[in-house]
Amino acid sequence: MGIVVVGTVAFDTVETPFGRGENVLGGSATYFSTSASFFTDVSLVAVVGEDFPEEHVRFLQSRDIDTEGLQRIPGKTFHWTGRYGFDLNEAQTLDTQLNVLIEFQPNLPESYREAEYLFLANIDPDLQMLVLDQMKEPRLVACDTMNFWISSKKDSLKKVLQKVDIVVINEGEVRQFTGEANLVKAARQIIALGCKRLVVKRGEYGVLMFTADSVFAAPAYPLEDVFDPTGAGDTFAGGFMGYLANTGDLSEEGLRQAIVFGSVMASFNVEDFSLDRMKRLAYREIEARYKHFTSLTNFKDIEIHP
Amino acid sequence: MGIVVVGTVAFDTVETPFGRGENVLGGSATYFSTSASFFTDVSLVAVVGEDFPEEHVRFLQSRDIDTEGLQRIPGKTFHWTGRYGFDLNEAQTLDTQLNVLIEFQPNLPESYREAEYLFLANIDPDLQMLVLDQMKEPRLVACDTMNFWISSKKDSLKKVLQKVDIVVINEGEVRQFTGEANLVKAARQIIALGCKRLVVKRGEYGVLMFTADSVFAAPAYPLEDVFDPTGAGDTFAGGFMGYLANTGDLSEEGLRQAIVFGSVMASFNVEDFSLDRMKRLAYREIEARYKHFTSLTNFKDIEIHP
Repeated sequence: MGIVVVGTVAFDTVETPFGRGENVLGGSATYFSTSASFFTDVSLVAVVGEDFPEEHVRFLQSRDIDTEGLQRIPGKTFHWTGRYGFDLNEAQTLDTQLNVLIEFQPNLPESYREAEYLFLANIDPDLQMLVLDQMKEPRLVACDTMNFWISSKKDSLKKVLQKVDIVVINEGEVRQFTGEANLVKAARQIIALGCKRLVVKRGEYGVLMFTADSVFAAPAYPLEDVFDPTGAGDTFAGGFMGYLANTGDLSEEGLRQAIVFGSVMASFNVEDFSLDRMKRLAYREIEARYKHFTSLTNFKDIEIHP
Repeated sequence: MGIVVVGTVAFDTVETPFGRGENVLGGSATYFSTSASFFTDVSLVAVVGEDFPEEHVRFLQSRDIDTEGLQRIPGKTFHWTGRYGFDLNEAQTLDTQLNVLIEFQPNLPESYREAEYLFLANIDPDLQMLVLDQMKEPRLVACDTMNFWISSKKDSLKKVLQKVDIVVINEGEVRQFTGEANLVKAARQIIALGCKRLVVKRGEYGVLMFTADSVFAAPAYPLEDVFDPTGAGDTFAGGFMGYLANTGDLSEEGLRQAIVFGSVMASFNVEDFSLDRMKRLAYREIEARYKHFTSLTNFKDIEIHP
């Protein structure tokens, strides 16, 4: 039991039509681990600079996240600046200050290496591989990535995709990686690389999970108020992996439930800036929204007349 | 029982990345009635010119579609020319020749006026209203429209939306009509006009059905080969209304099943140009794909621990 996640811990400056957050807590590993912490034990592998406030570390620890793998090195913390328009579907990156990320060399604490679940959140694929190589015998490995690595480090990324069980990426990235416009064909191409499953995130349109011979479609939860989509994908992945680590059920049925839990977590996260909604989220709310997902998608089967 | 549909019967010239169809059979009422004819009796109200071949009329009649309301007047048939790019999501209109549509004055045959189901397919909202006014006491009225009427005849369209039970339109049109970016808020605004339900078509992302206090989400069927999206929305509406007219079940449960039947019909239609897939479709294929939809969306509920 328990998940190790490697990714970024960052400061974000985000502008949406509904407000602005300056130097707020962000990063793929932050969102993932906070979301997963509602379901299971999480151990974090990331780097921050000297400017990273103790208050944020204490928040992660308050969620029982193991921060032994959170390195603090000289320099400034990774800082991302982005903006969303009214459609809220895609962030426009205004500035990226890699800072301490440039020198990051993940080195897993001994206790992390035996974990059964590993999530390689969005970060340089060479670092993802470095972490994967340090793990003893994980039961399930999943990874995310982003357009930047597809265009700049495709070979490294391909090696990662070939070694993981589940790839969790955006719809646009599936098309970008394969050069194939049809999503079903593109999905089959990525699965053919060697991973068993592909989970395609489609923002407000929900998620598709592909295997070589099945597809599962989950909608996104229809929300009247979306304030900040930042971290939705990582929060989704945290709920997905967190639920799997909690139950240990890797059957198709268990994975489908995990997809819905991931969608539930993402739907909460976008209701407020940064991790503010996560900070005041209760587990009974998660269960209640799962129930809402059931009524959102449920329809009656038909009997076929021979 | 039985549906009356008013809309266009047209020649389409369509180009997609996978081929080109020149002067092929098209039009909102054509796609709708062909799709609905798999489920119930359909009576068509539309206009064509002297150039419209008998062969197409015979095709409609071969589907048991009543063509008494299909006027043939001097002049040329409505002709639409459009193109789809690789994403296949939105047609680019290259040319529109209204021709006989300009003088079209729908006049319903006496036998049509008692029909229980009426679909006002995409056509001038003033014509939609003219048809609606000729009906005696329809049990269920639904309508479609398009961006062109929202920008050019919004007041007329608003009057139609206020008089129908179900509005079936594209996601982009919901936002265009309301000026509201959030789809849930926009949907509530349209329902507040007076209709009971709003069915939002999202192309490859499926369908959302809203009432004042519920939402149902259905995915689109994931297809490896989409050749021509023309008519997908009308084919969807035909399956939706056709199934409702067939069962007469207007409960939430019945309407959800109808949404899935509509989605099934649209998924077949896009597999070939024009109505070519409809022409070789068998009812057992429709039932089998409905079953696939069930397995596509199905996930297990959870028990909440008090």
